[in-house]
Amino acid sequence: MLINFDAGPAALPKEVLQQASEAILNYNNSGLSILEIPHRGKLFEAILEEANTLALELLGLDKNDYQAVWMQGGGRLQFSMIPMNFLAVNETAGYIESGHWASEALKNGKLYGNTNVLGSSKADNFQYIPQWGDTPEDLSYLHFTSNNTIYGTQFHSFPETEVPLIVDMSSELYSRKLDYSKFSLIYAVAQKNIGPAGVTLIVIRKSLLEKQKRVLPEILSYRDMAKNNSVLNTPPVFPIYCSLLTLRWIKAIGMDAMQQSNEEKARLLYDAIDESKLFYGVAKKEDRSMMNACFRTHDDKHTEMFLDFAKERDIVGIKGHRSVGGFRASMYNAISVEDVQRLVSVIKEYENTVN
Amino acid sequence: MLINFDAGPAALPKEVLQQASEAILNYNNSGLSILEIPHRGKLFEAILEEANTLALELLGLDKNDYQAVWMQGGGRLQFSMIPMNFLAVNETAGYIESGHWASEALKNGKLYGNTNVLGSSKADNFQYIPQWGDTPEDLSYLHFTSNNTIYGTQFHSFPETEVPLIVDMSSELYSRKLDYSKFSLIYAVAQKNIGPAGVTLIVIRKSLLEKQKRVLPEILSYRDMAKNNSVLNTPPVFPIYCSLLTLRWIKAIGMDAMQQSNEEKARLLYDAIDESKLFYGVAKKEDRSMMNACFRTHDDKHTEMFLDFAKERDIVGIKGHRSVGGFRASMYNAISVEDVQRLVSVIKEYENTVN
Repeated sequence: MLINFDAGPAALPKEVLQQASEAILNYNNSGLSILEIPHRGKLFEAILEEANTLALELLGLDKNDYQAVWMQGGGRLQFSMIPMNFLAVNETAGYIESGHWASEALKNGKLYGNTNVLGSSKADNFQYIPQWGDTPEDLSYLHFTSNNTIYGTQFHSFPETEVPLIVDMSSELYSRKLDYSKFSLIYAVAQKNIGPAGVTLIVIRKSLLEKQKRVLPEILSYRDMAKNNSVLNTPPVFPIYCSLLTLRWIKAIGMDAMQQSNEEKARLLYDAIDESKLFYGVAKKEDRSMMNACFRTHDDKHTEMFLDFAKERDIVGIKGHRSVGGFRASMYNAISVEDVQRLVSVIKEYENTVN
Repeated sequence: MLINFDAGPAALPKEVLQQASEAILNYNNSGLSILEIPHRGKLFEAILEEANTLALELLGLDKNDYQAVWMQGGGRLQFSMIPMNFLAVNETAGYIESGHWASEALKNGKLYGNTNVLGSSKADNFQYIPQWGDTPEDLSYLHFTSNNTIYGTQFHSFPETEVPLIVDMSSELYSRKLDYSKFSLIYAVAQKNIGPAGVTLIVIRKSLLEKQKRVLPEILSYRDMAKNNSVLNTPPVFPIYCSLLTLRWIKAIGMDAMQQSNEEKARLLYDAIDESKLFYGVAKKEDRSMMNACFRTHDDKHTEMFLDFAKERDIVGIKGHRSVGGFRASMYNAISVEDVQRLVSVIKEYENTVN
């Protein structure tokens, strides 16, 4: 099998894949495939309850204050639901523009109310996390993207404000310990750190659920989705089941060990890049992401050559996003320290070959 | 393994489950799990292209006139997207109210414009397909649910009108041959006849795509989703792949043979119900569904008893919806004639036991 550094859909733990594969033939000896079990039956209820519990527990959040909700539609549906639910037409929401996805979220905000961009690094192709200054107290919420997959940047501190913080943590959730109770709404598409494509995890403060600003179809209302415990209609059963398997895998490792492993992986790769004469890191050092490392070569002729060289050595998914170029190695939870060591040794081997 | 007559998530063909299970470990010898392959890479492009082609081909639709689009959010997101896209605030859309899901679609229509209910069987607990009378020519569209899963009723003829017909075929698509070019938009959640929960197939007439009535987030716009060939953002890769496997399975059987098998299954079960002294059919005979057969016993004491009796004989998923009671056997494509013969023999065995 290949080592897959893709930004997402991304690598999943081997044991998750094994269990998912078996469940498709016969789920837990039920005599039914996981693809066939009813979404309102006992089997799925148990999956959902455990997934909801672990989703909060691993973030250190209290289920009296927060609720986990599983939705479809990816980050883009969240971009539209956030202002639809929490921004009245005459109100203003704050946005920090730290990348393409942050811009798309902002664009959706403008469809439903006023927006105030507190900081942007767009003019510099998002190579750093912008400063955000003071947060006006009358904002309906402040939205930001804590990890910017395309550019390899990450927030290492957060706005301090009474305004509800809404954060897209798609490409980093469950990778580091934080005080997650700073946030009122956290969302993350599964296909990075949590599971396969097809489900989005929303962790929402219960008090925010009461602040819906519009009459909405139930399927587009956080309040109604939460009230129905993610089962307003048929949920994506299999992606939720795989997410549960991954959350169990994280719990068995522990969030402390998970974070340490991620720090070790990032240190290994960034050290190799910084020591290199051929490769260099793209993002501003202080804002580097622990999940996605973007790097390039000074001479573009190496781009295709190194991609081929790596592929011959079973390393895939390291092509950089077209708007940045070069290379991007995504080191989500399921990528091991050994996987990164292997990438580092291939980087060094390539340098020795071309020098 | 059990025989699963559940209304959905429903049984899938054995070979689809086998292939899906293998693809999770190593997709087509790519060295990657199907859950890990990039959604913008060659592997997924090939899956999507074949799925799009088969989706239209099996309905006899021309790809110059129609496009297949895969979305998330289930039928409920379609209920809201339809009026959001095609009903301006001062316009009127027609609805035929033939069941709970038709009512929910109607409720969503009212949020965006005016609605005109051309026919309803709500007062009779939806035991039949309502008459719909003449269709006013100025309607933006006419929406109906061709098969009503909960009540076991099905449209056997369709409104004749120039108004665009929008039809929820969730629990019957690919079960019978029809002139599908009557319809401007057909949608079906996968978890009945097409694949696992987590994806919805939309087959839309290209000329309808130009009739968007509002500025919308791209993720909620049929036009933008179609323009991006279902890959505006990360699509639900695995549910789409399973749907492709099912469409291939249907193609190998052929739509003629598929319909014949479905007719045979329905005949077997309805004959057994009609011949029974203990059981009786719920839906009006002329409107009976080929997919979902609803039946009850005159004495309710048999409900739990027969469910247990069937379960002991490995038959599950036949409990009727709570709003109808009794039993419901869903005979989607993946249920074989032999499966239905088995159910019929269990029905007869039960009758002999209690008489």
